Amino acid sequence: MDFSLIFLPEVLGTAMLTLLGCGVVANHLLAGTKGNGGGWLLINFGWGLAVFAGVFVAYSTGAHINPAVTVGLWATGEPFFPGNEDLGLPVIEASLGNALVYFGAQILGAFLGAVVMWVAYKQHFDRELPAPAKLGVFSTGPEIRSYGWNTVTEIIGTFVLVFVIVAFGYTPSGLGPLAVALLVVGIGASLGGPTGYAINPARDLGPRIAHAILPIRGKGPSDWGYSWVPIVGPLIGGALGGFAAANLL
Amino acid sequence: MDFSLIFLPEVLGTAMLTLLGCGVVANHLLAGTKGNGGGWLLINFGWGLAVFAGVFVAYSTGAHINPAVTVGLWATGEPFFPGNEDLGLPVIEASLGNALVYFGAQILGAFLGAVVMWVAYKQHFDRELPAPAKLGVFSTGPEIRSYGWNTVTEIIGTFVLVFVIVAFGYTPSGLGPLAVALLVVGIGASLGGPTGYAINPARDLGPRIAHAILPIRGKGPSDWGYSWVPIVGPLIGGALGGFAAANLL
Amino acid sequence: MDFSLIFLPEVLGTAMLTLLGCGVVANHLLAGTKGNGGGWLLINFGWGLAVFAGVFVAYSTGAHINPAVTVGLWATGEPFFPGNEDLGLPVIEASLGNALVYFGAQILGAFLGAVVMWVAYKQHFDRELPAPAKLGVFSTGPEIRSYGWNTVTEIIGTFVLVFVIVAFGYTPSGLGPLAVALLVVGIGASLGGPTGYAINPARDLGPRIAHAILPIRGKGPSDWGYSWVPIVGPLIGGALGGFAAANLL
Amino acid sequence: MDFSLIFLPEVLGTAMLTLLGCGVVANHLLAGTKGNGGGWLLINFGWGLAVFAGVFVAYSTGAHINPAVTVGLWATGEPFFPGNEDLGLPVIEASLGNALVYFGAQILGAFLGAVVMWVAYKQHFDRELPAPAKLGVFSTGPEIRSYGWNTVTEIIGTFVLVFVIVAFGYTPSGLGPLAVALLVVGIGASLGGPTGYAINPARDLGPRIAHAILPIRGKGPSDWGYSWVPIVGPLIGGALGGFAAANLL
Repeated sequence: MDFSLIFLPEVLGTAMLTLLGCGVVANHLLAGTKGNGGGWLLINFGWGLAVFAGVFVAYSTGAHINPAVTVGLWATGEPFFPGNEDLGLPVIEASLGNALVYFGAQILGAFLGAVVMWVAYKQHFDRELPAPAKLGVFSTGPEIRSYGWNTVTEIIGTFVLVFVIVAFGYTPSGLGPLAVALLVVGIGASLGGPTGYAINPARDLGPRIAHAILPIRGKGPSDWGYSWVPIVGPLIGGALGGFAAANLL
Repeated sequence: MDFSLIFLPEVLGTAMLTLLGCGVVANHLLAGTKGNGGGWLLINFGWGLAVFAGVFVAYSTGAHINPAVTVGLWATGEPFFPGNEDLGLPVIEASLGNALVYFGAQILGAFLGAVVMWVAYKQHFDRELPAPAKLGVFSTGPEIRSYGWNTVTEIIGTFVLVFVIVAFGYTPSGLGPLAVALLVVGIGASLGGPTGYAINPARDLGPRIAHAILPIRGKGPSDWGYSWVPIVGPLIGGALGGFAAANLL
Repeated sequence: MDFSLIFLPEVLGTAMLTLLGCGVVANHLLAGTKGNGGGWLLINFGWGLAVFAGVFVAYSTGAHINPAVTVGLWATGEPFFPGNEDLGLPVIEASLGNALVYFGAQILGAFLGAVVMWVAYKQHFDRELPAPAKLGVFSTGPEIRSYGWNTVTEIIGTFVLVFVIVAFGYTPSGLGPLAVALLVVGIGASLGGPTGYAINPARDLGPRIAHAILPIRGKGPSDWGYSWVPIVGPLIGGALGGFAAANLL
Repeated sequence: MDFSLIFLPEVLGTAMLTLLGCGVVANHLLAGTKGNGGGWLLINFGWGLAVFAGVFVAYSTGAHINPAVTVGLWATGEPFFPGNEDLGLPVIEASLGNALVYFGAQILGAFLGAVVMWVAYKQHFDRELPAPAKLGVFSTGPEIRSYGWNTVTEIIGTFVLVFVIVAFGYTPSGLGPLAVALLVVGIGASLGGPTGYAINPARDLGPRIAHAILPIRGKGPSDWGYSWVPIVGPLIGGALGGFAAANLL
């Protein structure tokens, strides 16, 4: 288990992800912000660039910052991170122990990022707003609730994420982390309509815990009844995406 | 004929294209989605990034994922794919046999991608919406119907696509698949106004077949009367674009 | 004079520029298009990506596709195009003869691109629309008419264009033509508010001639009274930008 | 002290930053512009591409164009600019003297850029508009005034800016200045909602001085009571971001 290699970078990268990602939803949804009602493309770019920043931060772990990516890479049979001799970065092998470190760090980071986001928008959270909208800043929720169909939508979106991330490896480019950022913009634009594209269990669970704990004014319940969908769907989709990529690409 | 080299990658790449591409139109058009009414720029980025993902997936065939590109490259007199020794990818020669494999795979892939898109948005397709809008998620249709002018618009858009794709080869950059993605964003923004920029016969025909077959609630006719326009126009435009590029650039 | 080296690429590149650039304005302004009312950011991306496509097309001349760039490079004291041994492209020296070839090709190309754009949007031009809006698809016009201030705004915008293009040469990147495309998006977003950012005499004059000649339904006058502003302003701004870049960077 | 190395590039780069950055706000806010009401994503791209242009211009100083970046790099213990042997650019060491040159140049440049922006939009500034909106073109202001919380929001945004800029150095890519441009788009989208993301003391102070001095029609007070927030917040956030990056990445 490579705890010391994995933990801190994944915490920091995932915190960056939810700080910026939940931040753009706050800007769009909360009352009185400068980006209020900024629209879906703003949200898509916000989340895409949140991934962009998070991937740079977690460079030394392969920047999973998403348990579904960890599971997906595991399903490919390759290491979690191939390492980089030029940068002096060691290989991180795929193993249950390492996976658990990734998961724990990702959930903790996602929680912390959401807390800092809440601090940045504290005064706007104090304004009146229906409780579901305040929850919507933290965690995803479906437009039409149906656990089965919602899970299917999350499986499809996360399949695309992991399948294409593996495909990135076959076409050299100078895009670096921009490739995955744009992929996330695209998945949001195209497949985010029904459930808000969690496609990342930590991105949903960490902020949901933050919502449950933080003294947010006028907050309602944290909708734990839905909370397993953005965990189970992405894990299945990620595993399928990684397995398919390893066998079909 | 290189069936085994061409078929699967083109199926997968074109499926990715219509899954994400039709998906952004679903998000914009269908009732109750998070991106409802998201606007033309959202649609343009959605389709551009659908190409982005599809091109990475179909890296080993040159990522045509579009019969008009296949025809256009044929018209240049170059191979369908020059191969890549570093990646161990063989050359794919231009020939009628290979072209037919590309075409079949592209249409099948475009069909499959639209089916998965329908699954992802199943509950929103179940909502009330005028039948033409539901068709509009799958296939293109003109704002002002006139087979002649509509064909001309598709010829122009596809000419630009293929002509500039060939031009990409003359200016080294690190953009990789981002170049064609941005080109598609630009063609959509600039030339998509009259017909919705099919610029790809498979992108239109495959999803139209899906629309005809799938049990979509409240669907109307699949408008087969228009269906030849986004096939003939792009094929002509692609051939002209490839021929012009080979002779003028 | 290198007529045969310069003429055709600059015609083609500038035609691509106005085909796509005027196209996005048509999409935004003309009645009944799919992108109707798409907004300023759509227009900015449309023009930026028009430059993107045009620059790839005119790779062998340095892709000026803009007389203000030609004048600006002239003012730097460097060749019009440094050539590229790897691609077998010869140097194009700065001279009056060559400049005139660039200018002529750019104006002709800009004219031709606007004609093709009109064909692509023919049916929408046939719809009712106030005559100034139809002219606005082709050429720029100020929101508040004042030849002096309008000229100043165009000088500033074109100064930025040429100054930063020269600066591109000092920071290696893999962006290729994307750099100038994004710069044009930025200039449009930031400095396009008063006059619609011609920042290119050919982009304005060529389409204005097309507007004057073409049998556009319900067209009004071509506003020749304003036409010198987007010629003189950009030429001054380009010359100042090139001179400043050569001496300050 | 390397006055001659630092001063002019930082003046020019920061002037480019506020010319384009304040310009997009002018386009969005001022009456009668073509981009009027263009929205938050337009503003985010405008500022991001303003950074893009400014960074290319100030290539020889490391393109701080922001006192918070200067302070943040200082906190990392690295030089202000590592130099570049290939381009013949010398190292610029971190020192109080050099920092003061950076600061002075940045504030002067930001002032000058805002003046030129005002010239470009002169006629639109002459139109009626509430005085706070005219100030809003130049400098940031909070949606909900609370010096403490506003400072916290600026600290968080600037922490992200500097922390991720340092992280850029660990992942090779061909993005060049596009990386920081996109980061600024993301920070604006995600963390700009409460205070308008100054995240740069010079970007706020320079234009505020311009607002105070220029004979802007119908201008109100320059809100000096708030002016320390976008200075102190970014300096603290930048220092924390640089220190954290040096110790955690």
